[in-house]
Amino acid sequence: MTQFDRRNISMMMDLYEMTMANGYFSDEDQGAEVSFDVFYRSNPDNGGFAIFAGLEQIIEYIENLHFEKEDIDYFRSLSLFREDFLSFLENYRFRGSMRALREGTVMYPNEPILTVRAPLIDAQLIETAILAQINHQSLVATKAQRIVRAARGRAVSDFGARRAHNMDAAVYGARAAYIGGAVGTATVMAGMQFDIPTSGTMAHSWVMYYDDEYTAFKKYAEKYPNATVLLVDTYDVLRSGVPNAIRVAKEVLEPMGKKLLGVRLDSGDLAYLSKKVRAMLDEAGLSDTKIIASNSLDEYTISSILNQGGCIDSFGVGERMITAKSDPVFGAVYKIVEVRKNGEVIPKIKVSETVEKITNPGSKRLFRVYDTKGKAIADLITRSDENPDMSAPFRYVDPKKPWKNRFFTDCTLKELLVDVIVDGKRVYPREALSDVRDYVKKQLSDEIWQEEQRFENPHTHYLDMSPDYYELKMSLLDETRGN
Amino acid sequence: MTQFDRRNISMMMDLYEMTMANGYFSDEDQGAEVSFDVFYRSNPDNGGFAIFAGLEQIIEYIENLHFEKEDIDYFRSLSLFREDFLSFLENYRFRGSMRALREGTVMYPNEPILTVRAPLIDAQLIETAILAQINHQSLVATKAQRIVRAARGRAVSDFGARRAHNMDAAVYGARAAYIGGAVGTATVMAGMQFDIPTSGTMAHSWVMYYDDEYTAFKKYAEKYPNATVLLVDTYDVLRSGVPNAIRVAKEVLEPMGKKLLGVRLDSGDLAYLSKKVRAMLDEAGLSDTKIIASNSLDEYTISSILNQGGCIDSFGVGERMITAKSDPVFGAVYKIVEVRKNGEVIPKIKVSETVEKITNPGSKRLFRVYDTKGKAIADLITRSDENPDMSAPFRYVDPKKPWKNRFFTDCTLKELLVDVIVDGKRVYPREALSDVRDYVKKQLSDEIWQEEQRFENPHTHYLDMSPDYYELKMSLLDETRGN
Repeated sequence: MTQFDRRNISMMMDLYEMTMANGYFSDEDQGAEVSFDVFYRSNPDNGGFAIFAGLEQIIEYIENLHFEKEDIDYFRSLSLFREDFLSFLENYRFRGSMRALREGTVMYPNEPILTVRAPLIDAQLIETAILAQINHQSLVATKAQRIVRAARGRAVSDFGARRAHNMDAAVYGARAAYIGGAVGTATVMAGMQFDIPTSGTMAHSWVMYYDDEYTAFKKYAEKYPNATVLLVDTYDVLRSGVPNAIRVAKEVLEPMGKKLLGVRLDSGDLAYLSKKVRAMLDEAGLSDTKIIASNSLDEYTISSILNQGGCIDSFGVGERMITAKSDPVFGAVYKIVEVRKNGEVIPKIKVSETVEKITNPGSKRLFRVYDTKGKAIADLITRSDENPDMSAPFRYVDPKKPWKNRFFTDCTLKELLVDVIVDGKRVYPREALSDVRDYVKKQLSDEIWQEEQRFENPHTHYLDMSPDYYELKMSLLDETRGN
Repeated sequence: MTQFDRRNISMMMDLYEMTMANGYFSDEDQGAEVSFDVFYRSNPDNGGFAIFAGLEQIIEYIENLHFEKEDIDYFRSLSLFREDFLSFLENYRFRGSMRALREGTVMYPNEPILTVRAPLIDAQLIETAILAQINHQSLVATKAQRIVRAARGRAVSDFGARRAHNMDAAVYGARAAYIGGAVGTATVMAGMQFDIPTSGTMAHSWVMYYDDEYTAFKKYAEKYPNATVLLVDTYDVLRSGVPNAIRVAKEVLEPMGKKLLGVRLDSGDLAYLSKKVRAMLDEAGLSDTKIIASNSLDEYTISSILNQGGCIDSFGVGERMITAKSDPVFGAVYKIVEVRKNGEVIPKIKVSETVEKITNPGSKRLFRVYDTKGKAIADLITRSDENPDMSAPFRYVDPKKPWKNRFFTDCTLKELLVDVIVDGKRVYPREALSDVRDYVKKQLSDEIWQEEQRFENPHTHYLDMSPDYYELKMSLLDETRGN
């Protein structure tokens, strides 16, 4: 098959999902139902939070999950699987249910961000695809949001396709960057597929193709008089690029009644150059002309440029956003938390040498706790059969200081995990991507403490537990110690 | 469209490729032909070389490049393009030629690794897709080769799908890792598509699903008696995991005439644990049972484990290989080097503030120079019309020390850039992936100096120039200075 052919992304899995599924298939208690939680252990770049992204693609995957004849033939060729299991795959459709954060939700380590309750085989088969999608899109959405924050209201665009880890990384990365607050992307496939605004003007090759820079600029302005953005660093920004751009503004655009929209800097000392360029443009009466910068930018370089008074209106961000270069792995994991078989509900806990790696057992509910001003002061895990009542002070346990008696007073709750798939069918609405993007923005402006949004030593969001849930976890730990 | 639908990867481009193409289309000298070079500026992880990968996908893309009605409708919706240009796209096929390194070739900074000679529009349109493919696959192939080198003959497998930057990154990343020397992948889609050996046994969820670890192991061994690899770190490697694995070997597998193939460690101090586990297995008479390790591994952790005498037979490498975590951006670029119009050949050079960023102008040939022992002692750039003759001492210029008189004596040459597309048609054979992998291995064992293969301060490969080529470059620099 070629890259142009239809792919069955149901085959996007680690082989062990299949060896386990085949093993469970022939097991006596095939009827068991299990629950898995997806969670992650630390925020990228030592940030205060992350952004949940990729849900729409996960739902699409679950809804369409199926195996075709050539897939089953491939499995057969591995000589690992029972024929009755391979036959079972022929008409296989996902039979379970899934809850998740709303796409775009601000999320924190160690809390369930997506939960699956399904027959054992179903729950196992989907692990790899779900994790890859969450890990990629949440990584880039979180990184993009950091970069957007650093730009302090200035536009950030995704220019990263050529350095992305292949095509999906460019396309779904552009989607995630948009969720994180980028205003658009240069990647055509992403713009077309997700209705993301696209932009793009010229490369150095345009300027170099023509005999001189002025001619190149003139040709471009004549062809795109309403959107003339000129790349001014091919030869010498201050002595050649900007003077030629100004000349084109005066000699080509003004006679047409048009203005020079912008100039782009793609190399050099962006803080220094942008101030010089701004002064030159202003002096020429081009104070509306924007300055766009685009060379190895991220939240750190952008902060630095702006702290130095750099005059940049818009940032084109490439490799460091699309690969999340400074911390390119989002480590969400998929862990079994509960088994239901023969009428019994058995919570499962994974112990570890390190306290942080002990999982939160059992199926559960997750709430965000708001104070009277609407600020999110903590997240709260309860047992799945609890209905926490905030009309009176509510006792909770901070698992890092369980000996303290603590109460939420005058708080309100929002349940964070919502149904997305029920018995194999989608129940979550298909959201416009711009709504997801707005939702991110609104949470950060209204709900999330500034102290969690700073880059240096951000405040650690509290993840608290109801007393009943904490007791469940401790009793399981006791049992395990007994073993 | 959903992720399951057919994609037209022709739309994998930055928008500026289209704004430029549309601009050139209406230009008077539409008939011009240009040459672009792809090259990169530094090796990932400060290594001594990189591995060229992704060529097969590039050829496939070029051969199938086309625009469909919905693509053209999308372009029309942007209100940027001329109708005659959009009509031109309807029957568009790539009309140019391409030369490239053979896939799997050991490559070095600043030399042309792929060159395009095509009508202006054709050459521009393909930039993004080519770069994304080379940048991704060369990145992972190079990283994988480093990890394979660190493993000193032990098997390395790709376990990275869940942390890859989405599906293509997992699939083409597995392909690249295999080229770099991995023995296989856990990613089913990659195994199926590229005929890469796959492997996979069990997750912690398998062990946790059952009431106890012994039962879980027993169930697995009964189902896969020929390929029993048991994950021994769910509860306690030394007190529970390995004793239960040994019991299963004795009580379940031996009575069936089978052996325990392996145990897998996925956490903890792998150097320490693997030595203890080896001793326990040996003492139980299971000296054929392999130890597989798989927790956040890369070339540095693997080297460290082996230096400490760790007894590991096989490494499952995840996030740090599939994302090339320590240096996740491969920075190949695509630069115009020559314009042919109206019977004139005009070489183009891109100057810069820093010497390293000055491009090598003009169309050119690239040779690898071998000594009498078959070792690659340098690479050599010549003008495209030169036929360097090694039957006598051959004078060359080291551009870092151009004042020295240097000669290649008793050397042989291999031309590195070969035709892959001629006038829009593929001429490069479709290679078996295992042949590409063998080619990498052979170069590293036979041709490439050990000094270039070490991790610390590797030798910098020489990139020399013929005197004629050097003169061309210098004369263009002089002209530019004149401007």
